[in-house]
Amino acid sequence: MVEKTRTLELTYDKLMKTIKEIPILQSAISIINWDMETKMPPKGINLRSKQLALLSGIEHKMTTNPKISNLLDKIEGHPDFRTFNALQRRNIYLIRKNYNEQTKLPANLVIETERQRAITIAVWKKAKTLKNFSLFKPELEKLVELKKNAANFLMDVKGVHNPYDALIDIFEPGVTSATISNVFNNLKQGLIPILNKCLSSSKQPDKSFLKCKIPIGIQQRISILLAKFFGYDVTSEKAGGRIDETEHPFTTGYYDDVRITTHYYENNFTSALFSTLHETGHALYEQNLPPEWIYHPIGASCSLGFHESQSRLIENIIGRSTDFWTYFYPTLRKMTKNNFSQVKLNNFVHAINMVQPSKIRVEADEVTYCLHIIIRFEIEQDLIAGRIDVDELPELWNQKYEEYLGVKIENNSEGVMQDTHWASGIYGYFPTYALGNIYGGQILSIMEKEIPLWRVQISEGNFQCIKQWLIDHIHQYGNCYDPQDLLKKITGEGINIQPYLNYLEAKYSTLYDY
Amino acid sequence: MVEKTRTLELTYDKLMKTIKEIPILQSAISIINWDMETKMPPKGINLRSKQLALLSGIEHKMTTNPKISNLLDKIEGHPDFRTFNALQRRNIYLIRKNYNEQTKLPANLVIETERQRAITIAVWKKAKTLKNFSLFKPELEKLVELKKNAANFLMDVKGVHNPYDALIDIFEPGVTSATISNVFNNLKQGLIPILNKCLSSSKQPDKSFLKCKIPIGIQQRISILLAKFFGYDVTSEKAGGRIDETEHPFTTGYYDDVRITTHYYENNFTSALFSTLHETGHALYEQNLPPEWIYHPIGASCSLGFHESQSRLIENIIGRSTDFWTYFYPTLRKMTKNNFSQVKLNNFVHAINMVQPSKIRVEADEVTYCLHIIIRFEIEQDLIAGRIDVDELPELWNQKYEEYLGVKIENNSEGVMQDTHWASGIYGYFPTYALGNIYGGQILSIMEKEIPLWRVQISEGNFQCIKQWLIDHIHQYGNCYDPQDLLKKITGEGINIQPYLNYLEAKYSTLYDY
Repeated sequence: MVEKTRTLELTYDKLMKTIKEIPILQSAISIINWDMETKMPPKGINLRSKQLALLSGIEHKMTTNPKISNLLDKIEGHPDFRTFNALQRRNIYLIRKNYNEQTKLPANLVIETERQRAITIAVWKKAKTLKNFSLFKPELEKLVELKKNAANFLMDVKGVHNPYDALIDIFEPGVTSATISNVFNNLKQGLIPILNKCLSSSKQPDKSFLKCKIPIGIQQRISILLAKFFGYDVTSEKAGGRIDETEHPFTTGYYDDVRITTHYYENNFTSALFSTLHETGHALYEQNLPPEWIYHPIGASCSLGFHESQSRLIENIIGRSTDFWTYFYPTLRKMTKNNFSQVKLNNFVHAINMVQPSKIRVEADEVTYCLHIIIRFEIEQDLIAGRIDVDELPELWNQKYEEYLGVKIENNSEGVMQDTHWASGIYGYFPTYALGNIYGGQILSIMEKEIPLWRVQISEGNFQCIKQWLIDHIHQYGNCYDPQDLLKKITGEGINIQPYLNYLEAKYSTLYDY
Repeated sequence: MVEKTRTLELTYDKLMKTIKEIPILQSAISIINWDMETKMPPKGINLRSKQLALLSGIEHKMTTNPKISNLLDKIEGHPDFRTFNALQRRNIYLIRKNYNEQTKLPANLVIETERQRAITIAVWKKAKTLKNFSLFKPELEKLVELKKNAANFLMDVKGVHNPYDALIDIFEPGVTSATISNVFNNLKQGLIPILNKCLSSSKQPDKSFLKCKIPIGIQQRISILLAKFFGYDVTSEKAGGRIDETEHPFTTGYYDDVRITTHYYENNFTSALFSTLHETGHALYEQNLPPEWIYHPIGASCSLGFHESQSRLIENIIGRSTDFWTYFYPTLRKMTKNNFSQVKLNNFVHAINMVQPSKIRVEADEVTYCLHIIIRFEIEQDLIAGRIDVDELPELWNQKYEEYLGVKIENNSEGVMQDTHWASGIYGYFPTYALGNIYGGQILSIMEKEIPLWRVQISEGNFQCIKQWLIDHIHQYGNCYDPQDLLKKITGEGINIQPYLNYLEAKYSTLYDY
């Protein structure tokens, strides 16, 4: 019996050794992708698309290696499998899930999708600059078809009933579009009254000073300092991160090499500032996964919704709070060599939280932000279901922006082409931003109970206690739970929009004095 | 018969499709390596070494795929093989050579070497900063052992009689250490008199103004402009290159994505300037290979010696000529906002060509440069033959510098650790720098006949004619010939040091008025 168990352990070790190569390859591919977004000379795109296609084929072959299935069979069928601890069982569950799903995808589809993805991103960049959707359209159409194909192949194995749910499950396992629809409808109902109260308040901030000119070099130094404050090191000899610039900020990487990007505008310094905070939140999650789980499936984040909960917690709940700015405003004044003499702290905080329906998601305030997401969710759902075509996207987008946010989109660059996601083949991801806000509200409600003085701490420039709390309650669990289970573990309940709405109501009723 | 020939062509096409993946993967790996040298956060080195090890294993598997051998057998054994044109035959020759060699190397050795290489580079950087050879030594020892192993495995298949020759053959096919020894001995004999005449001349340049402070930003703009002048585009929307900064400048890439690095010193602006010119010479070669040969073995440079002939031709023969500076000196004066009012053109040119035995290879003048190479060649030869150990390197290095160049090495950072090559597992490469000088002299002697007015053209800011000549006589042949054959094709003879010595004599007798 002991002998048998030892055989089981040896088989498990063999499996873990086999699958170790997957995250190593994926992390190499993420460098190639990062390079494409940040450093690659423009002419390199054709070769790059071939490199990515080749590597995705290799990755697919690796993830569908029959050896993995054989080892899994041996382990799952072993009488002592029940003696495995929870971590081992979770690893087996995740390996099995991934294997079963990947084997459903034809290699050619994976390779062609990756090739098309690189091309579509390049064309999107050009089309966005030229405000020319018809340049983008044919490449986007090809990519959407490929993603629809993939979704169809994945439906059964993921046990979902429509292709869009198969895509959502990649980013937010176990959450369906039906659940999201329901949550989003209620969320919308909750947001509209807050929005209206803010808009009709007589206390409106003056945010003209946010357009003051701050040289890029200074903005870069502020970004580095902010990252450091929150525990993301990009400068020391032991740095595990770096900050670069891209049109659309993102985070990528694995454990000791996690990179963020931001975007600097000379006349809009808060854009880089909050982009850096947002991506720093993502980076912290990746860098604080348990180091001993590196190369194992559990050594990863729980879901994209949880990732967004971390990024938007740093960006908004903390980063746009009066408490944080009590600490950081003097530094900002000093670093920008602008004493904002006319701007009191409270006015500054109100300005960076001004509620105002707008066209650009990443610049949106917390109250209207989810409306941007709901628009994208509804469009994606129809697009993947085949109820609308790519060429209908611009009009539909503009209609919904007029209807939900009351803004008139002037061109497709500030409209349907504003985000990189669809060009990057990322469908079913957008809802996770709003879920992240909701999870963030739920997480906050627990954190406030456990660290009642967190606002005081932040106002004194102390993030250590909150950081440790986030590690202890979220990061340290890696991918040990599906998102709904982790949410329950932390908060004792499922998705609940109320804490987020409560947080907004408390914050904005104070800011807007309503 | 026609049917049979068609089968042969189909088999050839199949082979070319199979091996196409190799350069695509290699170019992806080169991005990962470039990133390691230029952008990677320091903490990422451990993961990076695993990524590179994994990718080298995949590359090795790809290059030793038995399918390649089967297809080669079919082609080579086919009665109509003789109907193949020269390009097809060369492709077959190169594929066969690479296959036969790679299959001699055990996969584990390849993987372990790549892992060790990444680690050794990281330790070298640290050790160099700390001037601490003993930190570097244990990792270097491991790497040298791995390279000696590889050399032993390759000896037979390469048909050479000692391990060092097997390593040289990787960079300079068909050239042996015996040939090089012979050439270098004669070269030394030819260089010493020129060196002595320069040193004993009463006309010595004042080069103190070269230490003037030029802000890095301005040096960067000069680098970009120089690159552009020679036809290497790093700024336009269709750029196929970029310039970054590394401790040791290098060029890497493939066709439409070829990147160079340089090194900026505020008080030594010519360092970046000539590094940029040198690497631009490399980049031009890669970017002007016939585009229709991309992914084929012939779509590559001939050898590293030929590569160095191109880089050192741009850096020195052109880049340090009175003719080039006749054109560029006014621009330099304007861009540096330093009119060098005390420095006449002739004095400037003499200063950048000052002959002076020194410690650092990359900063050496043309007359002493090859002596730096000869030192490295002699040490490498003994190291790979096992006649000396790694721990003897510093003393031997210092002895030879004293003996050959009369300089006293103060510490190992300016001594044995100055170059990246040994840390990067590159042995047998150094001689190609001197061969590059020699080939360059031979190439120049022909070019001068065919473009008698080349110096006038350059002085008028026209490089187009020379560039086209280099493309027509060197770049366009890709890897169609082994270096000695290409040399013969261009110059009608084998390695001949005389043209290079003639070039030096003519140039330096004028500069030094001897």
